[in-house]
Amino acid sequence: MKQSKYDEMDGIFHPGKVAIIGASPVADIATLALLKTKIKNNVYFINPKYTEIFGRKCYSSVLDIKEPIDYAIIGVNANLVPRIVGECIQRGIRAAHIFTSGFSETGSPEGHALEKELRDVAAGKIRIIGPNCFGIYCPRSGLAIVPESSEVEGNVGVIAQSGSVAESFSYFGKTKNLHFSKVVSYGNAADLDCPDFLEYMADDPQTKVIALYIEGSKNGKRLHEALRYAACRKPVIAVKGGLTDNGNRVARSHTGQLTGTPAVWETLFRQCGVIQVSNHDELVNTVAAFSHSPLPCGNRVSLVSNSGGFSVIQTDLCAAEGMAVPPFGEKTLDRLRQLVPRAGTSIGNPLDAWPIFYKVFQKEGSLSDIIKVVAEDDNIDTLVFMFDQFRYIRRARKHEAIDHMNLVIGMMLEGSCYCRDVLGKPVFLSVALDPFLDDDEDRKGNLLLKNAFEQNGFPVYPASDISIRALSRLYKYAAQTGKAI
Amino acid sequence: MKQSKYDEMDGIFHPGKVAIIGASPVADIATLALLKTKIKNNVYFINPKYTEIFGRKCYSSVLDIKEPIDYAIIGVNANLVPRIVGECIQRGIRAAHIFTSGFSETGSPEGHALEKELRDVAAGKIRIIGPNCFGIYCPRSGLAIVPESSEVEGNVGVIAQSGSVAESFSYFGKTKNLHFSKVVSYGNAADLDCPDFLEYMADDPQTKVIALYIEGSKNGKRLHEALRYAACRKPVIAVKGGLTDNGNRVARSHTGQLTGTPAVWETLFRQCGVIQVSNHDELVNTVAAFSHSPLPCGNRVSLVSNSGGFSVIQTDLCAAEGMAVPPFGEKTLDRLRQLVPRAGTSIGNPLDAWPIFYKVFQKEGSLSDIIKVVAEDDNIDTLVFMFDQFRYIRRARKHEAIDHMNLVIGMMLEGSCYCRDVLGKPVFLSVALDPFLDDDEDRKGNLLLKNAFEQNGFPVYPASDISIRALSRLYKYAAQTGKAI
Repeated sequence: MKQSKYDEMDGIFHPGKVAIIGASPVADIATLALLKTKIKNNVYFINPKYTEIFGRKCYSSVLDIKEPIDYAIIGVNANLVPRIVGECIQRGIRAAHIFTSGFSETGSPEGHALEKELRDVAAGKIRIIGPNCFGIYCPRSGLAIVPESSEVEGNVGVIAQSGSVAESFSYFGKTKNLHFSKVVSYGNAADLDCPDFLEYMADDPQTKVIALYIEGSKNGKRLHEALRYAACRKPVIAVKGGLTDNGNRVARSHTGQLTGTPAVWETLFRQCGVIQVSNHDELVNTVAAFSHSPLPCGNRVSLVSNSGGFSVIQTDLCAAEGMAVPPFGEKTLDRLRQLVPRAGTSIGNPLDAWPIFYKVFQKEGSLSDIIKVVAEDDNIDTLVFMFDQFRYIRRARKHEAIDHMNLVIGMMLEGSCYCRDVLGKPVFLSVALDPFLDDDEDRKGNLLLKNAFEQNGFPVYPASDISIRALSRLYKYAAQTGKAI
Repeated sequence: MKQSKYDEMDGIFHPGKVAIIGASPVADIATLALLKTKIKNNVYFINPKYTEIFGRKCYSSVLDIKEPIDYAIIGVNANLVPRIVGECIQRGIRAAHIFTSGFSETGSPEGHALEKELRDVAAGKIRIIGPNCFGIYCPRSGLAIVPESSEVEGNVGVIAQSGSVAESFSYFGKTKNLHFSKVVSYGNAADLDCPDFLEYMADDPQTKVIALYIEGSKNGKRLHEALRYAACRKPVIAVKGGLTDNGNRVARSHTGQLTGTPAVWETLFRQCGVIQVSNHDELVNTVAAFSHSPLPCGNRVSLVSNSGGFSVIQTDLCAAEGMAVPPFGEKTLDRLRQLVPRAGTSIGNPLDAWPIFYKVFQKEGSLSDIIKVVAEDDNIDTLVFMFDQFRYIRRARKHEAIDHMNLVIGMMLEGSCYCRDVLGKPVFLSVALDPFLDDDEDRKGNLLLKNAFEQNGFPVYPASDISIRALSRLYKYAAQTGKAI
């Protein structure tokens, strides 16, 4: 995008001083969020009902503030919004996020009229994000959507028409091992729209991968150009909400957008090189793969497992997702036959060999050596661990289970770092963990492994089908951009 | 099946006295499992290496035990198995579970020869489960696969060729809210095979739904007959492991079975009325729906949600799974307009209306009233909650969040019990919970809801796509058996 437009957008995401208009001491999410970040001393409260909020002065109008304000967050009654935006313009504020709902998304004539009035007031004098949205989360500047947002900066950019999708990304970032460059929820898009954010994040050096949740568009041609512009520069992963008749109906009443048939959207995404996924969880899991992993050079996977039955299911799943689980080369098999105990194991790909998780005491032929042998096979592009072994380790090693687990983790990491950093092959880890598991000891042992791999920058997922699907998107992108065969 | 065959099978699952041959005090999973159940005082240990295990006498041979033994669990070196089985026959034991691997699944001539020798020894004189399997878990008799198996009896029967699939069902039963009539892992099926277990569980009055994991079969015609016999009597949910070329290769080396093309299996399952699912998680989640829910009378769902964006995604997902999310009738809309606060909500189906979770203090027009109104709509066959609200309740109600949550739970239950027990319509609950969530307070609040619904016999899932998929299988079965339109 043009430098002047880029600078304008970058300014919006990195304001110096922020006014919260309609601030409240009672469960006001924007106030609570901003008071927890580095921006907290540059936040001004405006609400004629209060003279003080959380011990700080509260102004009755934005016009009363002397300092120059860059950005306004507006959470007042919908009918008041046009007048308040007029005051922001008068005060010289360059951008406003309008939290308030009750505009075109209601489908009512009044709602449409109010949104038109807002547009007319704003016209060229102030940039608007919203209305009916959660606005911006940007760890670098301190803008935040929820009080629980992490302050750690990352490489993921999120553009979401839905407030709760943006909220969910912000809230669950740490849990999902995602850190963000910037997240924006833009709602009804009365002014700034998806293409503006796409072009900005495409040029933003901090953003490595873009996640997009979109329900509809006001200008198909402009969206097409912006999607192509962004997808040429970095991976763009997208969910189109409202693909079906009923979903469409719901989307119209949610953000009031024109929608389109599923085929139109699929063609649009394909033509632009955007990776389309079908729901929010897939979006999150795919983005995590792009955020944390190098691209694979091909679709050939080695599965390292501890169960025959699950190996079979996982191999089928790989095939269904376009990934192959080829036999190992003869050299690998020879080396594995030396290293892997035979009884109850299957020395092949998948390597279904629980005893290897007990080879942690010897220096030669240990678990990490076995991982390196598998990683070095020329038939293999990516290594995928299916770890479901902690409860077995607990049974076998009892009160020494955690110590044993730490040895296992060290050796898995040693082999995995060799695979990724020396051989340049991706490593994915699934730690099978049920959300409803009520055995805290079991949770703890599994989370030790998960945390260690996350800290070392590997993508980690809680189930094998999730990791295989995320990897397959990574491979498809690599193939599509000529980085894999 | 014939009464005599039924009695024989029922006897195998409910033995009086059990011998563990090859018992060991060191991490022997069968020993540890059986010593935790009601059968513990009827277990005999056999191992010439020991005279005592866990303070009890250990015999050097099964021939030394004076009491009549009904069932043997054999975990000795593969080469010794035929001789040990001979001794069991000599001792008058009617059935043996052979844990040991190293038979036909190795693919080696020696393995095949050993399995043939085993069959020749057993021929008609003793029934064999296995080899290369985990055997039986039956809460009523006390047979168990893992030390963590629950002793609570349930209505789910599991037949799994894979030991780890059966182990996983046994271990995760409590977490997955599944309780079992019986679980069997039958491995290489040298004698008793999948059809024997299918016919038995089809006639077993304790079993309401049958979960099947199968990799291959020795006798297609017999399997066809048994699948049809069982599926005519109760829902049979099946995963075929090894549907793809590579998966097939892995399955052959896992349990040494002849397999077949995916189309052959799909046709077989369809002809017999078996519900085929594609992986283990789907098997577990589908079985839970059949175990806990009445059948729906149609495919029309109402979603009760607290997010617009996620409502759109979930509506699309319903359509993709053959479920409809129709608009409410006019009468319902009128009643909801009286009860549901308007701002930021969408009064329609999905009901995207977070403020209803705060209507817990009034007697009239409360959350439970709103649920009842939705449930009573003639256009709706099933009610699905998408609960993702606890973190919002925490922000709003702070240290009173758990108290508030308990009020919400009480009202959700009141409405849901009315829907299921008075109106006869299924209720499904998703409590969005990430396995890797490290916020214990958030986990606790969500698990309160999950536990309360489970205790009241509702199916509960940790993500909305999982609940919709499980419900869609339930609906398809209802439609296929003429119980729904």
